[in-house]
Formats: sequence, C-alpha cells, structure tokens
Amino acid sequence: MIVVLKNGVAKEKREQLIGWLKNYGLTIHISEGEFHTVLGLVGDTSAVDMDLVSSLDIVDSVKRVTEPFKCCNRKFHPDDMIVEVGGVKIGGGHFAMIAGPCSVESEEQILAVARAVKASGADILRGGAFKPRTSPYDFSGLRALGLELLRLARAETGLPIVSEIMSTAQLPLFEDVDMLQVGARNMQNFDLLRELGKLDKPVLLKRGLANTLKELLMSAEYIMAAGNERVVLCERGIRTFSDYTRNTLDLSAVPELHELTHLPVLVDPSHATGINRLVAPMSLAAAACGADGLMIEVHNDPLKALCDGAQSLRPEEYDALAKKVRAVREAVKA
Amino acid sequence: MIVVLKNGVAKEKREQLIGWLKNYGLTIHISEGEFHTVLGLVGDTSAVDMDLVSSLDIVDSVKRVTEPFKCCNRKFHPDDMIVEVGGVKIGGGHFAMIAGPCSVESEEQILAVARAVKASGADILRGGAFKPRTSPYDFSGLRALGLELLRLARAETGLPIVSEIMSTAQLPLFEDVDMLQVGARNMQNFDLLRELGKLDKPVLLKRGLANTLKELLMSAEYIMAAGNERVVLCERGIRTFSDYTRNTLDLSAVPELHELTHLPVLVDPSHATGINRLVAPMSLAAAACGADGLMIEVHNDPLKALCDGAQSLRPEEYDALAKKVRAVREAVKA
Amino acid sequence: MIVVLKNGVAKEKREQLIGWLKNYGLTIHISEGEFHTVLGLVGDTSAVDMDLVSSLDIVDSVKRVTEPFKCCNRKFHPDDMIVEVGGVKIGGGHFAMIAGPCSVESEEQILAVARAVKASGADILRGGAFKPRTSPYDFSGLRALGLELLRLARAETGLPIVSEIMSTAQLPLFEDVDMLQVGARNMQNFDLLRELGKLDKPVLLKRGLANTLKELLMSAEYIMAAGNERVVLCERGIRTFSDYTRNTLDLSAVPELHELTHLPVLVDPSHATGINRLVAPMSLAAAACGADGLMIEVHNDPLKALCDGAQSLRPEEYDALAKKVRAVREAVKA
Amino acid sequence: MIVVLKNGVAKEKREQLIGWLKNYGLTIHISEGEFHTVLGLVGDTSAVDMDLVSSLDIVDSVKRVTEPFKCCNRKFHPDDMIVEVGGVKIGGGHFAMIAGPCSVESEEQILAVARAVKASGADILRGGAFKPRTSPYDFSGLRALGLELLRLARAETGLPIVSEIMSTAQLPLFEDVDMLQVGARNMQNFDLLRELGKLDKPVLLKRGLANTLKELLMSAEYIMAAGNERVVLCERGIRTFSDYTRNTLDLSAVPELHELTHLPVLVDPSHATGINRLVAPMSLAAAACGADGLMIEVHNDPLKALCDGAQSLRPEEYDALAKKVRAVREAVKA
Repeated sequence: MIVVLKNGVAKEKREQLIGWLKNYGLTIHISEGEFHTVLGLVGDTSAVDMDLVSSLDIVDSVKRVTEPFKCCNRKFHPDDMIVEVGGVKIGGGHFAMIAGPCSVESEEQILAVARAVKASGADILRGGAFKPRTSPYDFSGLRALGLELLRLARAETGLPIVSEIMSTAQLPLFEDVDMLQVGARNMQNFDLLRELGKLDKPVLLKRGLANTLKELLMSAEYIMAAGNERVVLCERGIRTFSDYTRNTLDLSAVPELHELTHLPVLVDPSHATGINRLVAPMSLAAAACGADGLMIEVHNDPLKALCDGAQSLRPEEYDALAKKVRAVREAVKA
Repeated sequence: MIVVLKNGVAKEKREQLIGWLKNYGLTIHISEGEFHTVLGLVGDTSAVDMDLVSSLDIVDSVKRVTEPFKCCNRKFHPDDMIVEVGGVKIGGGHFAMIAGPCSVESEEQILAVARAVKASGADILRGGAFKPRTSPYDFSGLRALGLELLRLARAETGLPIVSEIMSTAQLPLFEDVDMLQVGARNMQNFDLLRELGKLDKPVLLKRGLANTLKELLMSAEYIMAAGNERVVLCERGIRTFSDYTRNTLDLSAVPELHELTHLPVLVDPSHATGINRLVAPMSLAAAACGADGLMIEVHNDPLKALCDGAQSLRPEEYDALAKKVRAVREAVKA
Repeated sequence: MIVVLKNGVAKEKREQLIGWLKNYGLTIHISEGEFHTVLGLVGDTSAVDMDLVSSLDIVDSVKRVTEPFKCCNRKFHPDDMIVEVGGVKIGGGHFAMIAGPCSVESEEQILAVARAVKASGADILRGGAFKPRTSPYDFSGLRALGLELLRLARAETGLPIVSEIMSTAQLPLFEDVDMLQVGARNMQNFDLLRELGKLDKPVLLKRGLANTLKELLMSAEYIMAAGNERVVLCERGIRTFSDYTRNTLDLSAVPELHELTHLPVLVDPSHATGINRLVAPMSLAAAACGADGLMIEVHNDPLKALCDGAQSLRPEEYDALAKKVRAVREAVKA
Repeated sequence: MIVVLKNGVAKEKREQLIGWLKNYGLTIHISEGEFHTVLGLVGDTSAVDMDLVSSLDIVDSVKRVTEPFKCCNRKFHPDDMIVEVGGVKIGGGHFAMIAGPCSVESEEQILAVARAVKASGADILRGGAFKPRTSPYDFSGLRALGLELLRLARAETGLPIVSEIMSTAQLPLFEDVDMLQVGARNMQNFDLLRELGKLDKPVLLKRGLANTLKELLMSAEYIMAAGNERVVLCERGIRTFSDYTRNTLDLSAVPELHELTHLPVLVDPSHATGINRLVAPMSLAAAACGADGLMIEVHNDPLKALCDGAQSLRPEEYDALAKKVRAVREAVKA
C-alpha cells in the first residue's frame, strides 16, 4: 500500500501516522518528493482500512498495490480453471453453450425446448424456476415444480441443468440441480454467497448491473474462500445512460477478466440486450473476443412466454446461431 | 398502455395482435397517424408483457400509461404518510435525525455515541450489527452481540434503534429492534422484502446504487403489498462515472419521490459521499430540498473505527451540524 | 405524438391544451382510459416543444412517435449507404480497415507506419495532426505539418487519408484530406457540423462519450441536412462507472445503428479501451457483430509515441490481427 | 509519480525502464515490497506519458501524485478568487443570482423578464442568443439580434449580461457582453477555450455532461494558462442511468470543487433537472451546500417559450424562490 502525504505536513503528525501503521506489523519506506512525501507500506496490509487512512487530514491519497482477491487471482493461479458441470467442461478451451427458456412454464414447453437445443448441440439446459421480478404482481416462477420439470428434461435429454437460486431457504430444493446460478441482483447477497461456498457444486455468478470487475471477483472470492472453488463468471450487461437496449453489454469485460482471474467467463446476450434481434450479433461478438461460453434464452413459442419473451430466440434461430458461433470460434483459433 | 405500430403493417398482422390483446379483456382504441398507427389499450393491462409486445416485428414502441405501483402511489394516497418508530414520527412535516456509528463495536463505544447524539437532539440511534462487506476478509459486524449492545444503548438513552438486516434467517434476532433497515445491495432481494412485508414493524428501504426511482418504489410495493405499509425510503447515492466521491448523491430524488409517493424520504450523506468533510454540506442541502430526515454516521474515535471511518463525524461535528440543519429547516419553511 | 393527461383534469384545461395544439395544424384523437385520457396528435408535430407540453400541470407524460431524424433514417432509406473515400468503399458489405498512428510525429514515422499497414492490407491511413488533449500542457499535434506528412504518406502508398478536424478555422488546411474526422468531444459542436455539411467530402463522425444513439444520429442529421450525405458513424466507447478500461465499448450499438440508419458504422477499439492488449479481442468482436470497418492505432515504436502509446499496436501485431479479422468476417458471412 | 512493477520482473527490464525515466531528469526511489517493487519518481513528471508507462508489460499500475492543474489549484492559491462581472462580485462570500430566459425571443420578452428579475434582486441577466440544439430543425436563437436585445435590457435595468458563445467565429459579436458562457457541450472545445483565454473578460464554464471534476478543472486551466484568470465554474447536471430527470444534479461537486480550486462555483438547477417544479428545491439545496450563486431560467410566459419552457420559472415563482435562497444563506452562515 502506498500513502501519499500532503505537502508541508508537520513532522509530529507524520510520525504519529507511521507509528500507527507500524502497529500493523508493517515496514514503512519513506520517499520524499518535491511536493509530496510517499510512504511505501511493506507487509500484510489487508487489515488496514484504506478509506480511513485516506480520510486523514495529512493524507493526500492512498493506493492499494496488492489486489484484495486471492483465491480467484490469476497471479497465484496462472492456468485456466476448468469447471465441470455434470460432465460438461467449461474453461481452458472448453466452450459451453447453455440454452433454454427464461422460465420453466410446463412439462410440454421445457421438454420441447430441451430437445430442440440438444439437437442444436447445446451442452447445458437453463430454465428459471424462481424468478426475481421488479414487480410483486408479476409471475415469479413455478418454484419447486419448475425444478422438477427441469430434472425431467435432464432425464429425457441427458443435458445437465442450471437454475437461479434466490435465497438460502431454497437450498434444499436445489440439491439435485447441477449448477446453481446467482443472479445479477444477488451478486452481493453475501449470506447467500457464503452458503454456496459450503457446497460441492458449481456456481454461475452473474455480474451485477452496477458492479465493477473487482467487485465481481470479490463476490467470487466469498464463495471460494468458504471452500467451493467451482465458480463460473458471467457478464450480462451493465446499467449506463444508453437507452436503446435494456443494459449495455460490456464485452471488454471478457478479456479483462481473463487477465485478472483464471475462472471461466460466460456471456449472456439475452438479458444484456433484452431484444431478440441483438442476441445473434452479440453472441458472435462474445465468441470472437474469447468468452468460454454463452447463455442464451430459447423459447418454442415466444408470443406466449410468461416473461422476457422479447429476448428469446426460436429454436430454429438458435440452431442457425449455434452454427455461426462454432465458425467464429474456429476463425479466432486459426 | 399505448402500442405504436410500425408504418405499413399488414392488416392481417394488426388484427392478430388486436385479437391477442382483446383476450386480456381490454378495449382497443385505434388512432391512425400519417406515419404510424397507435393502439390505446383501455382496461387492466397489468398482465400484458410490455417487453414481449414491444419485441414484435410490427410494433415500433410501447408505453405504459398507468404506473405499476399502487400501494405507494401518491395518486391514490394524496396525504403524506407518517411512519412511527418507537414513538418518533417521520414524514408529514416530522423531520427525523438518525445518528450513530457505522458498526457497533463495543458497549463503551455505542453508549458513548448514543449519549452524545441524544444530547445533540438525535431522534433515533443507528448502528450496524450485520455489515455487508465487499470482501470476505473484512470485519462483518458483531452480529447478535451488536444488536444486544444497541438495545442496551436504547435502554440507557430512550432512543429507538434501527439496524440493517441482511437475510430472512436473521429475522428472529431483530424482533426487538424498532426499525429494520434494508441496505442498498438488498433493495431487490425480493424474498427478504416479502418477509418484511409480513411484519408489523417500520422498514427503512435504501435505494440501490443502480436503481431508478420506479424500481425503488416497486421494492417498497413488495413490502406494502404483503401487508406492511410502514416503509421509509432513503436516498444514499448512485453509481456514476464521477470518481471524486464514492457515489453521486442524487438529491433531486427527494422532491421527485415526494411527487410519486406519499412515503417519507430520508437522505444518508455519509454513505453517499464516503468523505466526512462532505457530510455537513450535503446534510444541509438535503434539509433544504425537503428531506424528511437524515441518517448520519457518528463515531467517538474515527481513527479506530473498524469500518467506514472515513465518513463518520465526531460528536462535536455532529452537534454543530444538527444546529445548522434546524436553522435551514426554519429558513425553508418561512 | 402522444400526450397522456393526468387523472381528473378539468374539462376546461383540457380544451385549452387541445386548442393550443390545434394551432400547430394537428388533428387530435382522444382516447379515454379508466385512469387516463390519451391524446393522439396526427400531423407534423416537429414544431411542438415536447418538454414544454410534458411540464404542464395537467400532463402526465408525452411520447414522440415519429423519430426526429429523417436524412439518416433507414425507414426512408432502406438500402445500406456506401460511402466512398478516395476510391475505397465503406458500407453495404464493404469492410474498411483504417490504421495508422495516433499522432503524426515525423516523416520517418508516418512513412514507416503507412508502408507497414499497407502491406497488411489496410484501406485507409489515419493520423492525428490536431489533437484534442485534456490538458493545455500536453502535446497537441504537428498541425499543418502533420497534414503535409500525411499527404506525403498517401503519395508514397496510395492510401487515402483521414484526420481529425477540431474547428471551422482549420477547414482550409483540410482541403486535400480525403475524409474529415469529427472527434467524440466535438460530436455536438453544431457549428462545425453545419460547415462540414457544406463540403463534398466524407465525414467520419465519432459518438460522444455520453451520447445516446439518437443524439449521434441527430448530429449526422446536421451534416446531411446541410447537403453532405457522406457520413460514416463510429462507436468508440462510452463513459460508465466501470473503471477497468478508459471507456466501455458499446458494441451492441453496431447492430442497433444498423437498424436505425442506413449509414456505415465503424468501431474504434483503440480509443474505447485505451489498452493495447484489448485491441485485438475487441476488433474481432466488432467484426463478428457486423461493423463496416475498424479504426486501429498502429505505431512503429510504441515506447516513444507522444500520445496514447498505451493503446497502439506494433505493425506485426496489426498484421496478425488483420488476418484474424478477415477470418471472422468469412465465418460470419457463411 | 509512482510506478508499481509486477512481481518477478527481470532485473534487466527494470533497469531499462529506470534508465528511460532518468532521461526525463527524474530521481528514482526504489521500494521493494513482498509482492511488488515500487518506483517513486521525484522531479517534474509532467512530460511522462502515464498511459504509456502503465501499458508496459512489466508495470502493474501508475499513480500521478501531483495534480496536472496549476493555475486553478487551491494548493497554490489558498484564498477564494472573486470574479467581477460588470461590477458584480462572485465568490469569496459574494453570492450571485443570475436569471433570465433560456432564449432571447423579443424586445418585449427580454425587457419584461429583465425588469422582473431585477425587481426580485437578481444580479446578472442571462439570455441565449446562440442556442446549441440537438436537432438541426430546432430553433437555434436570434443570434446577433439576440445579443442586441440583451444589451438593450442591460441599458434599461443596469444588470450585467451573460450569454453563451458557441464558436470562435462569434467572438466579435460578444465584444460588449459582460460574461461569456461556455456550454456543457463545448467544455472540451479546446480551440474555443484557448481563444477565451486571450480575452480580458469573465468566462462562465459549464461542466460537461460526462466530465469529471478534474476534466472541468483542466478546461479552466486552458483558459487560465492562456492568460485569463477570470473563470467561474458551473455544475449543471451529469448524465447517469437515472431517468426521472433530464440529468442528475451532482451537488456534492460544489464542496468538492471548493476543496480543489479557488474559483467560484455556481449551480444551474434549470438545465440540470429540466423540470420547473424541481428548480426551487434544488436551488435551496445548492445555496445550503455552499454554492457561490445560481443560474435560473425565468420566463414571462412559459407556454409560449421557444425552447426549454419546461424548466423555466414564472417571475412570481422566481421572486418567492429568491427570498428563500437568502434565508437559507443566512441559516447556513449562522
């Protein structure tokens, strides 16, 4: 950690701060510039409250040198992590196509979609059973029944299943679900993250709408520090002033996250854009910039979809897209 | 709801859509413009999926005319709501000063701060027992013990207490807490909101960092629709590109919320700015633009604060500020 | 235009508004809902001040149905526009690679870079002669000399040239430049846009850091309405809370703009990210989602670059990238 | 400047960088941490390209210690600057009320508004003659005639006048205008700023919609470094995701700017919110948090205003507001 002192600080105050910092077991290097004095703190600074130090009258600014995330830091884990979900590998060159409806609505629907996406080469089946909705008056999912129908579709097609969990109280219902998804709104539901860290099950962690990459990694750290290393990250759009799409898909997050962490990174173009015409171009873009997979909403009858119909592809659209995604992946590798 | 059709839509497709909309029991008014046809939907449109309709090929855009929030809508509740917290009134002309440390740290600390803010005229004591922290390695609160110490401070000073609850599992511990706070990160933790809606206890609902005013009101609606009408809103800064303060305090939200809803609106300048030098000016500004109260962090020894020390005032600073807040309130009334 | 009136508006006030609107030569359709009355305005509403109407006490909200841009609106120009720059076609299936240094620094530098990018198949040479810099103390370009050196490089390689113009006073110097670039900071310098509209020369219009797609199109409209239809748009990142890259590249703008307008759309990944490691992945992503070309910074000696060295590619990096871009374009077409 | 090197950097590469930095005449202090090596650069680092250094493979991050602005830096100018505009003082305890119509529309209009705001105690008259409009089809001001009418109103009332200049070509027309305003869209029109720096005339510099406080100060620096120190800053809202008001008024910018610079800071609540009902509460808030003045739109007949009518106050509303502003100023001083 580096602490820049203001110009003309009384020696006494400076010594007081240095003494306080030394109490943390740190060694302090002092470097005097023309206009500023810089303190270099050597040792374990994780316990030092950076905001507090920067608020002191004599301090100009503070910079943390060592990132606060460790378990998910590529510096300490140079090789790509490969996460297995029901036999399907994600990361380290393994590209996963996750597809399915926004919500599980009926046995007929989930089976039809599961068969269709399986035929188009999908690796994992998605489907919402518990749906976070902005309004208390909106459809919030079939809940336990939805999970049961998902398991039925897995039995029928062999596709592993992923579904969103919204609170720790739902954990028993998810015992036989292959991957648990943490939605954007719950990315900083720390109690939930900690509980997921106690499981031996892959977690799909979506980036919050207003969260930085470092905050996303700190949330992954919550799960990993509690013992569960099987975390897959997912970019799904951030909130900006831009008003044409629901969110702004931040695709540069993909190569950036690959620098910062060894965890796999997926992209969800359906929720990011909220417009089905944009799902195909943004999926191809995600594949081109190195994503480890895609999560795409597919529906067999979009006009009747109970939620988010606007962003779902029809099976034949998904099939055409999946072929192009493979071609782009080949082009990029070459 | 208004549906604008694209230019040159085939009559057949248009009739199909109108037929589908009539299935919802709606009456459809058709208005033909030079370049567009506009459908006016009369009746209860709450079940119609606006995103789905707007995604149809023949549709240009859709506009919802009736707001989706009802319980907290001032249109249906023209008079200010007054929420009582342990005998203290908030809203409808009653201004509440909530003050206390970020975290409860020790009996000595909480008693000292409670006595100090009481002496300066504070109405309610705040103090964090469960702390949401970005990093799993940071101090996350004294938990049950923290709540116990808060109750002790209440017994000693008579001040009602408010503290943040992070998950439904903590509910039993909060039984004897006067007001439950929902933090910004949990503003859309819908399961938690629904549970709080079953209580007979005031809830302080903070705006999320990336949430619009309508989303804040929809979260209030979750609590109220479940039966608990005692909701107090709190603006605490939003996330923007501006990098000087931690967040950007959106003070115009205060008069805007007063237009949209009859619920009281507080401001938390401590978390919004993250810098203690800015707490006083932004508190005065909040009082000047009509806030129903302030939530301010006060600490008896900022250098030792375990978290967020950078934004806490010392008791003497709080005392001076409280006097000025009263003066501004008088000036604005006059 | 649609005007939604508030509930319970006095008939008299309503008639007053309708009378005022009829003065604009409009026909008014009235549609009465349960809670609201909706006025549909038919005719030319471009002169009606939407903000004014929406500010009236009796008005709930207003929605413009017809977009305010015409010259660049795909509704009226369904076929892709192809813009020619010194014999090079952009748009309508023609993909243009624009490459060159951030700033022209010396004859040796610009010739070396021009030869290198030409050898790698670039179509147009870029190079800054007038540089907008945040600080008055930073290098602001070789100005007239820079343009002269660009022309020299054109003579040597045959590549048409593009360079940024910052004010109308510089127009005479740009007479022999093939395409004039309007930078992000000048996207709403309306006097400059109007003057460029009088030229018979292609204009490369970059999106401002905080501008919506509609605002970008309105700026294109300024140029086109003044008589110059040869406008090429360029996405180069928007300002958001995300702090890892300099800006957030909004790639979904590419397919969105293609829906709204028939003008070609380029992407500048160098300025968008500000980090040279991200230029390649984001270039591939842009090609995958349908961009009509790329604008990439290339420098023969990045360590000595006078500005923006951090985001420039070396010629050999550019060469490898250009090959992959071609492969992705093939994959997407297939 | 501080340069943090990555872990495990080859000694040779490190020496190469240090050698390169020494070429700038800098002294380099080396501080070795457990995981990082930190270089402290002492001397004049203004010529070092921070982005370039941070892009080097061996560099983890870079931090500038000395701010790049000097003329407007409070560190070097601890006393508040007082700017005089036609005899009216702004800053250093002098609070200026600037009021008038968005656009000058007619002699009758500007005289009526000028007399009214004068009677309510306004200090300076505002009025747009050249209007930046998003659409080329919108009214763009009376231009030279508008300035003439403003001068007429000054002759009649004695109020100094301020009006927006959009390009250097308009400079001759502004010779007899007391203060020149640079609009938000032109905050980084560096050619214009440089020309204004050559005048002996106060400049009102508005913050751009997507500009940080440091960028605002760098733009002030352009004017001041060219010789004109009479700069007044103005906060007028930033662009965020929040969609209720046109922009988000960032009031904490007021105390923040007062820390960073000795220049006066005004607030324009009319443009920030775009809604006339919000002008009064946000004006009071601005006065409460220490602004040095307000810029408020007043119109004698809002329904007929040619632009921005939605945000203008009527004279009697302005009068009532002016009285409350004075009361708040008294309350805050006390």
